[in-house]
Amino acid sequence: MNVADRRQSLRDGLIAAAEQAIAADGLAGLRARDLAKQVGCALGAIYNVFADLDELILAVNARTLAALEQDLAAARPDGGDPVGHLVALALAYTDFAAAHMLRWRAVFDHRLPRGRSVPDWFVSEQGRLFDFVAAPLRELRPGTGPEEHALLARSLFSAVHGVVVLGLEEKLQAMPLGVLRRQVVTVVTAVARGLRETA
Amino acid sequence: MNVADRRQSLRDGLIAAAEQAIAADGLAGLRARDLAKQVGCALGAIYNVFADLDELILAVNARTLAALEQDLAAARPDGGDPVGHLVALALAYTDFAAAHMLRWRAVFDHRLPRGRSVPDWFVSEQGRLFDFVAAPLRELRPGTGPEEHALLARSLFSAVHGVVVLGLEEKLQAMPLGVLRRQVVTVVTAVARGLRETA
Repeated sequence: MNVADRRQSLRDGLIAAAEQAIAADGLAGLRARDLAKQVGCALGAIYNVFADLDELILAVNARTLAALEQDLAAARPDGGDPVGHLVALALAYTDFAAAHMLRWRAVFDHRLPRGRSVPDWFVSEQGRLFDFVAAPLRELRPGTGPEEHALLARSLFSAVHGVVVLGLEEKLQAMPLGVLRRQVVTVVTAVARGLRETA
Repeated sequence: MNVADRRQSLRDGLIAAAEQAIAADGLAGLRARDLAKQVGCALGAIYNVFADLDELILAVNARTLAALEQDLAAARPDGGDPVGHLVALALAYTDFAAAHMLRWRAVFDHRLPRGRSVPDWFVSEQGRLFDFVAAPLRELRPGTGPEEHALLARSLFSAVHGVVVLGLEEKLQAMPLGVLRRQVVTVVTAVARGLRETA
């Protein structure tokens, strides 16, 4: 392997190891020392391929978002009804969160140190998720402009996120997944119908 | 002061200092050493009145929930319309979160070490907040049973929480408060109307 290949291979190995560690123990348990040990490199070698642990975490979180995006892209009901489409997206989101809880939490819980902002590529990665919600919204509210669709897509995405995050919260006694899914269906169906009504 | 009064006064002082620190710098910056310095006690004295820093944080978070509860109790529209009541509650929640962002985040971000669960008094404190949402829901869906009302109250609370938490998220470029409030009104009005429709 040449130098560039070795760098890439170390990068990939570290991302995979960090992803595994986050999936097993969450963000709080992530230690550079453990990762170096797992991929068999010196501790300092990590910082040849990532500026710091935060950059590595961002790379893991981007992979999580990409996996979620695949699931959302697959969530299209047969009929093409926008209410059904929104419900299918919300259920895909719920199932993804339940199946990959700690990886999913890491996306939202990770905070960069003060003064550093999230790179643009990461923000647009997240923004692409909202676009899935904007498509059925355009059908529900054809009279509304694209800016309002974008805002509302983010808000609906966030509403479902809230139902899922607090529904799965152990501090509040987590809802069984079946109960949570029914709640998601009830809330999203209601909001979609309510939005259509006012269009 | 007798011993009990001194203990109480130290407790109150530490809670006030921790609340101030969280309000200024968030949960992550909280250090026992700084708190001891601020209230003028020895570091070890903290652990005479709190088992650990987590117990102190729970006490701060309980105060935050109590303050939020006061604002929700005051959010009653004149007319008594359940849709308007839900919107008023959601706006009170939004305004509280925006005004006390870091204290509010601490309630949701705080995690106890593995294996320890949140005390019952804290869970029921949080549960009381959902009850505010259950009241207008009973009017919107008189044919639904109390268990479903309780579940749905938690879900609607969570939906608004999600809209607010991601709406104010700097990582996604925070919405200006006026924009966020309009989004909250749109989503909550839609969901309330949608729920009434299906009742």
